[in-house]
Amino acid sequence: MLGRLNHVALAVPDLTAAVAAYRNTLGAHVAEPLALPEHGVTVVFVDVGNTKIELLEPLGEGSPIAAFLEKSPSGGMHHLCYEVEDILAARDQLKAAGARVLGDGNPKLGAHGKPVLFLHPKDFFGTLIELEQS
Amino acid sequence: MLGRLNHVALAVPDLTAAVAAYRNTLGAHVAEPLALPEHGVTVVFVDVGNTKIELLEPLGEGSPIAAFLEKSPSGGMHHLCYEVEDILAARDQLKAAGARVLGDGNPKLGAHGKPVLFLHPKDFFGTLIELEQS
Repeated sequence: MLGRLNHVALAVPDLTAAVAAYRNTLGAHVAEPLALPEHGVTVVFVDVGNTKIELLEPLGEGSPIAAFLEKSPSGGMHHLCYEVEDILAARDQLKAAGARVLGDGNPKLGAHGKPVLFLHPKDFFGTLIELEQS
Repeated sequence: MLGRLNHVALAVPDLTAAVAAYRNTLGAHVAEPLALPEHGVTVVFVDVGNTKIELLEPLGEGSPIAAFLEKSPSGGMHHLCYEVEDILAARDQLKAAGARVLGDGNPKLGAHGKPVLFLHPKDFFGTLIELEQS
């Protein structure tokens, strides 16, 4: 079921500083910031060739990464996103195996405009897993 | 400088349970456990096609992931490893830019038998970064 790693999401408190660190210090290919108010984040994609790093800064009220940054004010690794061929089949298989799907269990449109689901980190050893329809 | 994402390392308290979750629940390609006493971990590689997930369980006294698991007993995302073409040139460039290299600043042989370095997570927004000579 689990396909390729679409991205690693890192929550950062200061996107401008993070962009400077990835672009200048690490010499990575860093795109321009993209505000996604409907997702409560501003995102910057870092292209590392075989996958992407997504730098996420909270945007607006009730950002889904606000609580994470309250707990870890310097930032940190937030989630891993894997591609799946059929997100509804993946969901049903995971639920049958006892894994918890966050929210109401129905896929939402993610930051790439594709259906996504999140799995409870307690079922996967503290790692928040996003599944994205490929 | 920053090359492809070689792996994402996840610290887990129970490798047998983690292998079962990745193999059976997530349907991933999971290799057999590999004890690396010189690195203080037992590792399991999960091949997701474009990169690898490394599940790490402490092995022996003074494991480098023991403190992490004391703070996060259920486990969690531990570090990201990127490939670099020339690890000494990368180190010198990073140090010149003010980034801190952990340890004595000299590359050590990592879990894949290649020279590696770790960068201070405080310089990269809470993410521990490993660089591996490609």
